[in-house]
Amino acid sequence: MHIKNILKDMEKDNIQAYLLTQFTNIKYISDYKPTSFAFCVIKENPIIYASQMDMEIANRDSTIEVKEYEKFEVMIDDLKKEGIKNLAIEPSLVYSTYEKFKDDFKIESKNYIDKQRMIKSSDELKNIKKATEIAQTSFKQLDVANRSETEDVLAFDLVRLMIENGASGESFDTILVSGSDTSLPHAVPQPKKLETPILVDWGAKFNGYCSDNTRTIVYTEKQHEIFDIVLESHDKAIKAIKPGLKCCEIDKVSRDIIKEYGYGDNFIHSTGHSLGLDIHETPGFSIRDNTVIEKGMVITVEPGIYLEGEFGVRIEDTVSIGNKAKIIGNLSI
Amino acid sequence: MHIKNILKDMEKDNIQAYLLTQFTNIKYISDYKPTSFAFCVIKENPIIYASQMDMEIANRDSTIEVKEYEKFEVMIDDLKKEGIKNLAIEPSLVYSTYEKFKDDFKIESKNYIDKQRMIKSSDELKNIKKATEIAQTSFKQLDVANRSETEDVLAFDLVRLMIENGASGESFDTILVSGSDTSLPHAVPQPKKLETPILVDWGAKFNGYCSDNTRTIVYTEKQHEIFDIVLESHDKAIKAIKPGLKCCEIDKVSRDIIKEYGYGDNFIHSTGHSLGLDIHETPGFSIRDNTVIEKGMVITVEPGIYLEGEFGVRIEDTVSIGNKAKIIGNLSI
Repeated sequence: MHIKNILKDMEKDNIQAYLLTQFTNIKYISDYKPTSFAFCVIKENPIIYASQMDMEIANRDSTIEVKEYEKFEVMIDDLKKEGIKNLAIEPSLVYSTYEKFKDDFKIESKNYIDKQRMIKSSDELKNIKKATEIAQTSFKQLDVANRSETEDVLAFDLVRLMIENGASGESFDTILVSGSDTSLPHAVPQPKKLETPILVDWGAKFNGYCSDNTRTIVYTEKQHEIFDIVLESHDKAIKAIKPGLKCCEIDKVSRDIIKEYGYGDNFIHSTGHSLGLDIHETPGFSIRDNTVIEKGMVITVEPGIYLEGEFGVRIEDTVSIGNKAKIIGNLSI
Repeated sequence: MHIKNILKDMEKDNIQAYLLTQFTNIKYISDYKPTSFAFCVIKENPIIYASQMDMEIANRDSTIEVKEYEKFEVMIDDLKKEGIKNLAIEPSLVYSTYEKFKDDFKIESKNYIDKQRMIKSSDELKNIKKATEIAQTSFKQLDVANRSETEDVLAFDLVRLMIENGASGESFDTILVSGSDTSLPHAVPQPKKLETPILVDWGAKFNGYCSDNTRTIVYTEKQHEIFDIVLESHDKAIKAIKPGLKCCEIDKVSRDIIKEYGYGDNFIHSTGHSLGLDIHETPGFSIRDNTVIEKGMVITVEPGIYLEGEFGVRIEDTVSIGNKAKIIGNLSI
């Protein structure tokens, strides 16, 4: 099904074979997720060259024919024997691999898979919803505002709760930080007692799919004031989302509200990113992303205001897009 | 210091600027570890273009001048203004980034940093030793052979112990598996009670540096028999290591012993890999690696025999290389 659509795209571009190495792309296409390097070649008869140590699981999981990888030269010979001259690669292919193919093929970078992965199937959405449910239930159980442990231990407890609730793990390094560290969007939990505000950015992984949320618990008057601005930005951005608009237009809605209050320079990242098998997928609600919003996309909305040396506030929900955007999960803000 | 050596290498190759994007390479060179994309350019006046959201930590940590990243065009203009024509990139640079530079510069892929990172400084070795000590202490505390919980919970407990003992986290996804899953070198812990044998492959992270060990606890006669072969391979490979030999020669020592016993086809990966800021670094004890062993390298030795559908045994230690190889840590096998 996925492969048929890709073959159509390839035909239009006169591409004979499409080389994949990104683990999540290979999983998306074949159900086999490599644990070591692997090369998947989409063509009339698609094939995966798996590393020797992965052969047992590749044979078990893959819906595509699997062959044991021997060396580059063998792959290149195989492709040449089939008369392949025009080869497409993923934008994320590393240069050292590209270099090994570049003399034997005409190479173009194509995002055929990213394009398909933008639109989630109902099964994919179900997995994202389940991951979100697990993450949010665990967050409630953690009850972070009433705990006396240190940041790093609490971050760890949150992951443990997610696993106990059915996740296979965290979907990215849990950010559970407090005090002035909250002004760093990607801060690392420290062995120190909680200060205020408390910011938690976390997600669970379920069946390979990610969830992503952020909550900030505020205490002082100034923290509340900033919180209200971020919340207004979050709510209005979500309301503005609809198919047909461009992603950058949603970033603008979110950013303009924060600008109006005079904090434009303190909103130091984009408004959101898609997620699925990877925690960061395309498209994103960013100033530079002109992708047209479509039904089936699943994207985060996460405005923030960061006051260096003081504190930061971020509020993040993941939305699934139908005729409008619907927040996944039901965690109060 | 590091930068001076790289500038020397660059001069020899007539390279005017060296572009880095790999987070651990940027940390190695500047002490700043990006949490979002960043571009570090090594040249007479080295510079890092950091993302807006990283500016606070980049300014705090980096020993190299930091500038806020605006867009590609600005970076390219900056380089051109300085008269830079010959640009080197890391072998791991993604194609989509390479593509943005390729029309304006003559580009070559160079592993200047990998080459330096092969030889660990005494501070680096200290960090690897501390990471190993934490990991091994935690493994003893876990006492896995006498536990009744499921694989996934025990894997989780091991990570928790490492953090309580001072690690910042695990250096890779902990493999704590049992029964027939041990025949998969990269198996994932499952929510099931322990069977036999029990295989644990784990490591701690300390100050950014990794450790890596594997222990297999065997029970049946056949498991013991396979264990003894793997142990012989492990011990003799470590004894064979000395500066001046090629890495592939150590792989051969290890592999030949397993072959002699008739299990050559069941040793389905290479004998070892370097580690440091990354869990997999170069060089490795592999059939294809002709790198000459030098003092200061830190490499794993981890032969294994995998009997599909039955079980697997792997024994892994990390060695630091002086006149001979010395096992890091003191965990019994």
